[in-house]
Amino acid sequence: MSVLRVTDIGSFHIGGHNVSLAGLPPRTLVLTRGAEAQAFSADGDYETGQLYAQYVRLADPKARWPLLLWHGGGMTGTTWETKPDGHPGWQSWFLRAGHDVFVSDAVERGRAGWSRYPEIYAEGPHFRSKQECWELFRFGAPEAYATRRGFPGAQFPIDCFDQFAKQVVPRWGMNDAPTQAAYDALVAKVGPSVIVTHSQGGNFGYTAALHAPGLVRAVIAVEPSGAPDPEGLDLTVLRQVPHLLVLGDYLDGNPFWQGIMARVNRYVAALRAAGSTADVLDLPALGIRGNSHFPMMDRNSDTVAERVQAWMTRVGLMR
Amino acid sequence: MSVLRVTDIGSFHIGGHNVSLAGLPPRTLVLTRGAEAQAFSADGDYETGQLYAQYVRLADPKARWPLLLWHGGGMTGTTWETKPDGHPGWQSWFLRAGHDVFVSDAVERGRAGWSRYPEIYAEGPHFRSKQECWELFRFGAPEAYATRRGFPGAQFPIDCFDQFAKQVVPRWGMNDAPTQAAYDALVAKVGPSVIVTHSQGGNFGYTAALHAPGLVRAVIAVEPSGAPDPEGLDLTVLRQVPHLLVLGDYLDGNPFWQGIMARVNRYVAALRAAGSTADVLDLPALGIRGNSHFPMMDRNSDTVAERVQAWMTRVGLMR
Repeated sequence: MSVLRVTDIGSFHIGGHNVSLAGLPPRTLVLTRGAEAQAFSADGDYETGQLYAQYVRLADPKARWPLLLWHGGGMTGTTWETKPDGHPGWQSWFLRAGHDVFVSDAVERGRAGWSRYPEIYAEGPHFRSKQECWELFRFGAPEAYATRRGFPGAQFPIDCFDQFAKQVVPRWGMNDAPTQAAYDALVAKVGPSVIVTHSQGGNFGYTAALHAPGLVRAVIAVEPSGAPDPEGLDLTVLRQVPHLLVLGDYLDGNPFWQGIMARVNRYVAALRAAGSTADVLDLPALGIRGNSHFPMMDRNSDTVAERVQAWMTRVGLMR
Repeated sequence: MSVLRVTDIGSFHIGGHNVSLAGLPPRTLVLTRGAEAQAFSADGDYETGQLYAQYVRLADPKARWPLLLWHGGGMTGTTWETKPDGHPGWQSWFLRAGHDVFVSDAVERGRAGWSRYPEIYAEGPHFRSKQECWELFRFGAPEAYATRRGFPGAQFPIDCFDQFAKQVVPRWGMNDAPTQAAYDALVAKVGPSVIVTHSQGGNFGYTAALHAPGLVRAVIAVEPSGAPDPEGLDLTVLRQVPHLLVLGDYLDGNPFWQGIMARVNRYVAALRAAGSTADVLDLPALGIRGNSHFPMMDRNSDTVAERVQAWMTRVGLMR
């Protein structure tokens, strides 16, 4: 493996604000073995709404702008790191391709932290079971969960499914506004940058570009689970912001994903109508078959990354 | 800044096991803007009890073994990364000093994820307010929270206290056993290594050395919030495992911390009685004054790191 010449590895939290709580009942807790039991009041001040971002900066980047890697729902930045099968993921691949890379944990998950409910978040989280992951992420037919038989030709390493499930974190359904605000703050802090999203991150990436078309230099949406409704939006601000949509396999005949694709395709069509570059990397149509909802964790993740990288070069994102 | 020559940046989850839940009520949720409302059952399988670790490996490490950096309670691995004031933290410092570094998020926090209660965890988490942090972490007198006046001579960057508070995550009181098991699994996976702990991590690091004295090459406990009861333990297994205790300022006259120190000092004395090296880096006694419970985030964090590094060299941890 070649040596990466790194100038800086670091992290920060950005976004969020203070909230003050009062009138909560005290609890008595022992928080460390051997420590005294203490009475704790939950009354007081808390930060909420921040996200976490970690960066690796190269001595000689070949890309013009850093990549911001934004994960999907119920996941964290680990989406982009080492794959569940132990092989290098996209963080590593794109660093070696010459990009500075920022991997973030969005509001409510991972190192971003989360806030108590119902006092700060209105309701409790959704815990996503392995069965739900199996079906939603198109690893195999629902009835094949018990036997762990993946779709024919599946690129996802099915024998690493339990390892994948260790990455799954609780998620909420009503944190879109603070999450978008924190992502917008991240873009403002980093400056000109290229956003790569996965799943739930798609909406946030598309919207971040609309909010800061002068800073977002491209949006690459991998398997987005939604897109803005173009009705009433002025997409002409995105004429200089190329968009790429990356789609895996097994979408045909899946009503849930077909519903999502209808909304995403409408947004792609509206981008084109407004004069923006909006390309589609439809992997099965290119003969690259078997990709799940997580192409960056599939066995052929390098192949998919190469296609994305070729597009980046083509639209002028490299030096 | 000098260039780090890095061979590998990656991460993994380790430890944990499956738990299956049944009989939970379904919920209807919209999980992404524009997606259909769906009925979700929480019945199913979940992974619980894993931890997350991220590593940076150097082309030419000067240390004989990797450093494992274990954070304290209510915190994540960000403890060791960029400081709240934006300056490089200990992850960066020890990488530049020639150590491979593993930063982890323990069970129940950060990228390790957390599990539902009361079905998997027996009870809900404790949310630590800023007021509690301010007092517990010895940034200033309790009554000075409102005015944010730190202790006289405080090295903690008080004007970055809210930024610090963005790093704080919920914590539980009863996850010691799965956390220890996951840390032990981490040591077994990494192999010979040096553990650096903070606060709640102290107990886990001390115990990990007792569980694997042939793998843990040293334990550096920064401001531990507890230590094992030496009664009935055979500490002679640790004769080849040097221990260093690092203490900040403002411990005198603080009854909570004096209680903890009594237990930690008893463990240090027992280590020495058993023939182990157990040194103390008492910063104020050395004329290094003003350190909080978080010396790795204080303004003089480099000075403290230099002292730790000198001890590492002295006890033979460098090549």
